[in-house]
Amino acid sequence: MNLIKVGVIGIGNMGSSHVQILDKGQIEGAILTAICSSNENRIDWVKNHTSGDVQIFRDEETFLTESGIDAVVIATPHYSHPEIAINAFTKGIHVLIEKPAGVYTKNVLEMNEAAKASEKVFGIMYNQRANPLYQILRELIHSGKLGDIKRTNWIVTDTYRSQSYYDSSKWRATWKGEGGGVLLNQALHQLDIWQWATGLMPKRVNAVSSFGKYHDIEVEDEVTAYVEYENGATGVFITSTGEVPGTNRLEVVGDLGKIIVENEELTFYRLTQSEREFNRLYKDGFGRPEYKKIDIPVKSENANHVNIIQNWIDSIITGSPLLAPGEEGVKALEISNAIYLSSWLNQTVELPVDPDQYYEKLQEKISTSTFEKKHVTNNTLDVKGTH
Amino acid sequence: MNLIKVGVIGIGNMGSSHVQILDKGQIEGAILTAICSSNENRIDWVKNHTSGDVQIFRDEETFLTESGIDAVVIATPHYSHPEIAINAFTKGIHVLIEKPAGVYTKNVLEMNEAAKASEKVFGIMYNQRANPLYQILRELIHSGKLGDIKRTNWIVTDTYRSQSYYDSSKWRATWKGEGGGVLLNQALHQLDIWQWATGLMPKRVNAVSSFGKYHDIEVEDEVTAYVEYENGATGVFITSTGEVPGTNRLEVVGDLGKIIVENEELTFYRLTQSEREFNRLYKDGFGRPEYKKIDIPVKSENANHVNIIQNWIDSIITGSPLLAPGEEGVKALEISNAIYLSSWLNQTVELPVDPDQYYEKLQEKISTSTFEKKHVTNNTLDVKGTH
Repeated sequence: MNLIKVGVIGIGNMGSSHVQILDKGQIEGAILTAICSSNENRIDWVKNHTSGDVQIFRDEETFLTESGIDAVVIATPHYSHPEIAINAFTKGIHVLIEKPAGVYTKNVLEMNEAAKASEKVFGIMYNQRANPLYQILRELIHSGKLGDIKRTNWIVTDTYRSQSYYDSSKWRATWKGEGGGVLLNQALHQLDIWQWATGLMPKRVNAVSSFGKYHDIEVEDEVTAYVEYENGATGVFITSTGEVPGTNRLEVVGDLGKIIVENEELTFYRLTQSEREFNRLYKDGFGRPEYKKIDIPVKSENANHVNIIQNWIDSIITGSPLLAPGEEGVKALEISNAIYLSSWLNQTVELPVDPDQYYEKLQEKISTSTFEKKHVTNNTLDVKGTH
Repeated sequence: MNLIKVGVIGIGNMGSSHVQILDKGQIEGAILTAICSSNENRIDWVKNHTSGDVQIFRDEETFLTESGIDAVVIATPHYSHPEIAINAFTKGIHVLIEKPAGVYTKNVLEMNEAAKASEKVFGIMYNQRANPLYQILRELIHSGKLGDIKRTNWIVTDTYRSQSYYDSSKWRATWKGEGGGVLLNQALHQLDIWQWATGLMPKRVNAVSSFGKYHDIEVEDEVTAYVEYENGATGVFITSTGEVPGTNRLEVVGDLGKIIVENEELTFYRLTQSEREFNRLYKDGFGRPEYKKIDIPVKSENANHVNIIQNWIDSIITGSPLLAPGEEGVKALEISNAIYLSSWLNQTVELPVDPDQYYEKLQEKISTSTFEKKHVTNNTLDVKGTH
C-alpha cells in the first residue's frame, strides 16, 4: 500500500514538532513530502532537520496545488486555520488542524461545512483526548457510573508563561494576531475535555477575564467562568498564566459520587447508594451515603500528538473513527467565545453565542486596539513539556 | 478566685453541647449555673444531663436579671443573637454568641456598639479559628511568606445534609426562621476563615445561589460566589449541602507560591524567587520560577468549641486577647449578605452592602414566602462530627 503523503503548513512551535514526528517515521502509513512556510529561517530549519526528500513551498496555493500531498497538517497562526482548511478540502486534501479550530465560530462553522462536502478526513489536534486519564474519566461518566452530574470544577493554572514567551512573536497575545490569550491558547484543551468527558455543553456562562493583568499584553491572562448546564448542574472553570506552581485539578460531582483528576491521577469516590435516593429515605439528620474511595491506576500521557496524527492517518487509510473529529473543534470555541463575550459585556450569555455578534465584537477589539509590543524577539520556542 | 458563673440560653443542637462542656468542668475558671429554654423537652434533658446545681429559666429577661450569671453563651436561633446579646450587655454580662453573629448586619452593628459601650468581653463561636491548620495558614500569609495574594479558591462541599436534617425543626432553612441556608449555617466558619486567614475582605461579589435545589427548603443549598479584592486578586467560594462525599479544599496563591489546605493537611509550594520578578527578568520563553514543596505537619482539630469557650473565660478573668472577638462576627456576615444580595439581584454588588437595603430585601423574602414545611420531626440532633 502507498504511504499517505503529508504536508505541514506553518513551521512555528507546533509545526516544527509535527515535522519532526513525521520525518522520523513515527507515523505508520504516512510520509512527510512537503512543507510550506513564508519564513526563511524556518525553511532553513526544515532543511537542516529533515532527512527525507521534503519539498519546500513558500506559498499556500502552490503548496496545496502542486505538492501532490494527500493530507495536510495545518499549524499556522490561529486565525488562518479555517481558511486554509477550506482551501485544502476544496482540493480534496485530508486535513488535521492544530487547535484552536479558529478564533471565532463564524468561519469555523463554514470550515465544518466544507469538510462535510469534501468527504475528506478532518481531524483536530485535541491531543488530550488521547490521554488515558481523560479517556477513563469519560468512560466513568458516559457509562453512568457517576450518575447525573451535579457540579464540575476545573482549575487550570499550570499554564504559566513569562513575558518573554509573549514577546517571542509579534502576533502572540494580540486580538489581531491570536484572537485571545490563555483561554484560546493554553486552556483550550481543557475546555474541550470539559465538554467531551462530561458530555455536557454549558447553556449559560458568566465570566470575568482580566486582560494583561500579569503581563504586558492586551488579551486575557486570567479567567474565572461560572457556567450552568441544561440539567441544572453548575460549573466553574479557572485559568491563568500568572501563577506558579499552577494547579490542574478537575472535580466532577455526580449523584453516585465524585471524581477528582489531579496530579495526573484519577480518584473515584463511589457511593454505594444514589444521593438523591438517600436524601429521600434517610430519617436521622446528620447521616450521609457511604462511599468507597477508588484510586484508578492510569498512566497519564500528556504529549499525545503522535497518537492524534496516527489516528488521523489510520482513519484516512482504513476509515476507522477519529478520536478528535475536526467538526468538534467548534465546541471548545463556542465555550471560549461565550466566555469572552460575557467578559466584554459584563453579563451572563447564553450558548451558543451568535457567530455574527461575536465576530463583530472581536473586530471591534482589533480595530480599537492601541496596544504595541515593545520587545519582539521572534524566537521559535521548544514546545517540549507543553501540551 | 471565684469561678465565672456561666449561663446558656438556647438548648438546641449546639447549646446542648455547650451545656455538657461546661457541666463536665472542661472549662477552667468557669461553672455552669443557669440555663434558659422555652422548650420543656430540652429543660428535661438539661435536668437529666447535668450534675451540678443548674438553675432553670423559661424566660430570657428573668434569666438575665435573676440568675446571677457573670457570662452568657447564646445558642438560640440565629435571628435572636443580637437582641439577646444587647440585652445581656445592658445588664453587664459577658457574652459568647454562637455563629452567625446574626442574620443581617443592621442589628449586628448595633450589637457591636452595645458590646463596646458595655466594656464586657464579647466573643463569637468561630471555633475554626482555634484550628491549628488555619492558624498556620494565617501565619504564613500574615508574615509575608506567601507574598501578595493573587487568587483564593475554597470549595466547601463537605457539608452534606439530608432532607431529614432540614425537617428536624420548623425554623430550619426558612427565611423567617433561620434567614438563610448553607451559607449562614454550614459554611459560615469558612467565610470567616477566608477573610481572617488571608486578611482580605472582598470588595465585589458576583454570586449565584440555588434555592431548594437538592432539598425541599426555601433557602439556598448551593452557592458559587466570585469575588474581587482591593489589591486586584480574585477568588471563588463554592458550597453545597447536596454532595457526597464533599470537598473541603482551600487554595491561596501568592507572588511567592501557593498554599493548599485539604484533607486536614497544609502544603506550601514555596517559590525561591518572586514570580513578578521572574516574569520581568526571565528571557527564555517557557521557563518558570523554581519552588519547593513543603508539607507542613499540623494536627488539624475541628471541634474546638472548648478552646473558644476557654479563651473567652480566660479573657474575662485575665484580660487576655480573644481569638474570635464578637465584633468580628460581622465580617463573614457582610460576605454572606453580599452573596445573598448578588444572588437575589442577579448582579455584582460592592461590599459592604447597605445594611438597610439588605434588611429590607430579607423582609421581602420573609413576607412573600409561601413555603410550608411538610414534615417537621422536632428532633434535637447530635452535633458530634459537625463543626
